[in-house]
Amino acid sequence: MHNRQDVGQKSRIGILGSGDVGRALGRGFASRGYLVKIGSRTPNSNKLRDWMKQAGKFVSVGSFADAATYGDFVVLATLGTAVEEVIDLAGASALEGKLLIDVAVPLDFSKGMPPGLFVGTTDSLGERIQRKLPRTKVVKAFNIVGNPTMINPKMKEGLPTMIIAGNDAGAKNQVASILREFGWEEPIDIGGIEGARWLEALVPLWVRVAQQVGSWTVAFKVLRE
Amino acid sequence: MHNRQDVGQKSRIGILGSGDVGRALGRGFASRGYLVKIGSRTPNSNKLRDWMKQAGKFVSVGSFADAATYGDFVVLATLGTAVEEVIDLAGASALEGKLLIDVAVPLDFSKGMPPGLFVGTTDSLGERIQRKLPRTKVVKAFNIVGNPTMINPKMKEGLPTMIIAGNDAGAKNQVASILREFGWEEPIDIGGIEGARWLEALVPLWVRVAQQVGSWTVAFKVLRE
Repeated sequence: MHNRQDVGQKSRIGILGSGDVGRALGRGFASRGYLVKIGSRTPNSNKLRDWMKQAGKFVSVGSFADAATYGDFVVLATLGTAVEEVIDLAGASALEGKLLIDVAVPLDFSKGMPPGLFVGTTDSLGERIQRKLPRTKVVKAFNIVGNPTMINPKMKEGLPTMIIAGNDAGAKNQVASILREFGWEEPIDIGGIEGARWLEALVPLWVRVAQQVGSWTVAFKVLRE
Repeated sequence: MHNRQDVGQKSRIGILGSGDVGRALGRGFASRGYLVKIGSRTPNSNKLRDWMKQAGKFVSVGSFADAATYGDFVVLATLGTAVEEVIDLAGASALEGKLLIDVAVPLDFSKGMPPGLFVGTTDSLGERIQRKLPRTKVVKAFNIVGNPTMINPKMKEGLPTMIIAGNDAGAKNQVASILREFGWEEPIDIGGIEGARWLEALVPLWVRVAQQVGSWTVAFKVLRE
């Protein structure tokens, strides 16, 4: 377990997934002085090598297994449909004992846009990942906003609210610490990883709201009395 | 179809359901000068008669059929599990051609608190109601906030956002007009009634957030860039 001090000492982060979300979080962690390795199926692609050059000295690229082994903690930022395969490629043993921040969403595009979910409401991708990796500390986080909002989330009318779920209190504290570094307020912790059902189900609503508003830079804020 | 002018002329509202939500909306409509009839299984109960006296001269109580017949438009505010039976008691013909504001949520308390949903993510209560009442204009609205927030929604950090869904554009305009009277900003319209899937799925998240915050007076605001 890493505490805030460790995080201040430039922890190594493995990011599984080199799409928009993985790259946005990679840049975000690097901007805070973390050492980042992005894991990809095609780490030698020109596109990814070019991106790596722009992203600066704290960022490298490797296979999923490279990134999982490298990270003191790991971020899962692949398409929801690819999650199980990517975890197999990363290797459960490389993730053992570590915090895994699960940003994936089980979006079902089989009927086009806007998407549904492929897990129903009595299971979630977060729970599936935790069952598949029982010795890993899975925390669902970041999945309820788009990648433009993950780092420096401040918007015209204030800060949106991050909501997280996971079984390990220490791992959730670590995520709360990362969120503060990224400019978020204290997240709302809705309990065990089964809360991922509702964090994932927020995303089809978010997509529909974004379509209506005409921007992917929309996010939910919890207002209080 | 009723336009804004009609609404200004004290439309009659039937409310199916005399629980917290039905009574809160009943008071809200009455406070704006609407004529309200609350429908209940037990319209002659002392509790409801006492409440009616407090609620003022614009409010009366009757059977579900009475309320459905009375209303120029109708609000469905029963428990999710009671919806089909209440519609049968109200009578499809009494609802024909009318706007039905569907506030119900298919909450599943079979495993206690906090609840799940009993419809999955490929159907919704809103869609079931629209299928059951094909000649009624069903609009999902108000269901994503608690009854303390439905009327005069302003909170410490501003106004929450209402999100609505339904197949009939005119009926949604009428709901937007009611929302303005109640103190809301323009709602976000996410399209057809199938959007109810995600408005309903927001409620288990809302319950968990409310439990964590320690207040039922919490609501979501959509922040923009």
